Amino acid sequence: MQQVSETFLPWLKKTIPLTEHLGIQSLRWEGEQLVFDLALAPLVNDKGTGFGGGVAGLATLLGWCYVTLLLDETQQRCPVVVRDSSNAFTAPITKDFVMRCEVIEEQAVEVFLQEFAVKGRARLRLKVWVEQQGVSAFSYEGTYVALGNA
Amino acid sequence: MQQVSETFLPWLKKTIPLTEHLGIQSLRWEGEQLVFDLALAPLVNDKGTGFGGGVAGLATLLGWCYVTLLLDETQQRCPVVVRDSSNAFTAPITKDFVMRCEVIEEQAVEVFLQEFAVKGRARLRLKVWVEQQGVSAFSYEGTYVALGNA
Repeated sequence: MQQVSETFLPWLKKTIPLTEHLGIQSLRWEGEQLVFDLALAPLVNDKGTGFGGGVAGLATLLGWCYVTLLLDETQQRCPVVVRDSSNAFTAPITKDFVMRCEVIEEQAVEVFLQEFAVKGRARLRLKVWVEQQGVSAFSYEGTYVALGNA
Repeated sequence: MQQVSETFLPWLKKTIPLTEHLGIQSLRWEGEQLVFDLALAPLVNDKGTGFGGGVAGLATLLGWCYVTLLLDETQQRCPVVVRDSSNAFTAPITKDFVMRCEVIEEQAVEVFLQEFAVKGRARLRLKVWVEQQGVSAFSYEGTYVALGNA
């Protein structure tokens, strides 16, 4: 993938005000993965670890960014919504962290773009996860729908 | 249930900083349901409707409050964590809204408290939902674990 445009994250923080408060330091492609670098401080809970609601919100957002950036690359920006998601919280997040997103099935991007070209609307399933020192702390799967401009 | 203590919400907003930014107007029991009254403005997305990540975060939080308040009522406050959750986003949220939480199975509270008394640790499954004009906009199920003070 191309690198994320420098204007995307400022636009996001202006357009979705809550994203100002989620500790997002940067958003970048690393190969086929879309990656958030995150500060723990704004996300702490009563135990001083990552607040589950904030982590789930970030995962929802990262998947939404993935689909939106994919449409941007092909000059097809349109409204995108999350349809459903599942979250597993497997270990406390104890320091600044990295969250990663990629497709679940091989060829999913090609299938998505083809469906979008034919129907003007398409869905994509994505996974998101957080690892700390090689141990899974969080995993997520979500379904997103690009609604088209019709 | 007893009404939620007036000190709980200020404590929550101080302890979990992100909860200051989620549009929470009040937290109250309505019969067996725990209820958030929510402002849409801090939660809007690029479409001017409820940002899925914020809504999922609020649902995660409301379930956590349910378990924590239940432990408070029985003078057994202890760390509580969310273990897993699933979210379905079924319609855009277009105005200020109400989010509700209750147990999924009858007697679940009694079973939870009994398990906690015996093992010093217990889990509870909860559902959370948002309706607008009688139509479901969002539904959620989550599993929470009260970790005890051991």
